Amino acid sequence: MRISELSDRSGVSAASIKYYAREGLLPAGERTGYNQTDYSEAHLERLRLIRSLIDVGGLTVAATARVLSAVDDPGLPLQEVMGVAQSALPQRIAPPTADSVRRVEELAAAHGWCTHHGDPAVRAAAAVLDAYAAVGRDDLAAVLPAYARAADLVAEADLDAVGASVDAARAGGDREATAQTVVIGTVLGDQLLAGLRRIAQQNVASRRYGPPPEGTSS
Amino acid sequence: MRISELSDRSGVSAASIKYYAREGLLPAGERTGYNQTDYSEAHLERLRLIRSLIDVGGLTVAATARVLSAVDDPGLPLQEVMGVAQSALPQRIAPPTADSVRRVEELAAAHGWCTHHGDPAVRAAAAVLDAYAAVGRDDLAAVLPAYARAADLVAEADLDAVGASVDAARAGGDREATAQTVVIGTVLGDQLLAGLRRIAQQNVASRRYGPPPEGTSS
Repeated sequence: MRISELSDRSGVSAASIKYYAREGLLPAGERTGYNQTDYSEAHLERLRLIRSLIDVGGLTVAATARVLSAVDDPGLPLQEVMGVAQSALPQRIAPPTADSVRRVEELAAAHGWCTHHGDPAVRAAAAVLDAYAAVGRDDLAAVLPAYARAADLVAEADLDAVGASVDAARAGGDREATAQTVVIGTVLGDQLLAGLRRIAQQNVASRRYGPPPEGTSS
Repeated sequence: MRISELSDRSGVSAASIKYYAREGLLPAGERTGYNQTDYSEAHLERLRLIRSLIDVGGLTVAATARVLSAVDDPGLPLQEVMGVAQSALPQRIAPPTADSVRRVEELAAAHGWCTHHGDPAVRAAAAVLDAYAAVGRDDLAAVLPAYARAADLVAEADLDAVGASVDAARAGGDREATAQTVVIGTVLGDQLLAGLRRIAQQNVASRRYGPPPEGTSS
């Protein structure tokens, strides 16, 4: 198909399509003549994946490029693909304090989780503890044990969902489809959980404090 | 203090301080002479709150302005402050499909959660289901029941943490401090949970598939 049709069907502007191709997120189309390029259904699928990661997952274009290059590398084990997807979390500007890192490591140890030095996931959690402290709300760290239990529930479900694909890929299934599942599940799961957390918060708040004031709930 | 000292102590550039003041995030300093303005400790605290919401919470400047104006409005009930903080989630470009909205509403009903028409939290969760479908991974929606149980755990902990402050504010405590707690806990909690989810994922993956390949874990 021409770029105009690809743009219509994907909802992505021709300028963005060309930009993603230049940045290596999207394979180049096939040149079929002067100023004319042909795109396939695979390009359309890739564009949908790109836009999901950027629009819904909140990744930057650079982070999306890193994640997709892990998906595209046939020699990369799926567990490493998950690692790349995990580290696509926006990195904070300031490094976390040693004190907060230690608190997260202690929490992890209490849950039987191994962590390694410089783990970006530990740093991300520690940066939040620093932010609580910076605004004088250290007491908010009281949520940690319950959050860790919730993280366990979620991680088990995550691995159940991608595990079936991983097993299929090991048995000779489609490695690229599995890698996509891993990436999408890891990146978009945060947003799904954030949405459900808000619905649950509204309901716990209503139960404890009564319904919200008239006219504010829509 | 002068703007140079405020900048040194907060780590925020003078240009950004002036920008936040223009956009209404930060109260103006006191003019004490020609081309000279005086800032207080309250300005420093406010700057720390602003940077936590933007750098760690990932809010835009516009969303931060909306959230802070809710914190600053003494007539706004705390439950509404929470609503404003909840809706600071980045809004997706495309509205979710009716089908995905219905699936989230059904899940909510199964958990005894009330939802209302147009609820931004429902829309955020539904947008993720649409993204799963758009990349042909509808099967990832299998995580929904476990995510909902995790959201319940997290929301109870959230309300426990802010609840003590809310009760204190009702008993004549500091409403503004409580409103800040609500905002920080709501916005930054997502990032804390995302970090812990990744630590848990690594450990569930190691348990199921063995340790990650040599040399990739740091």
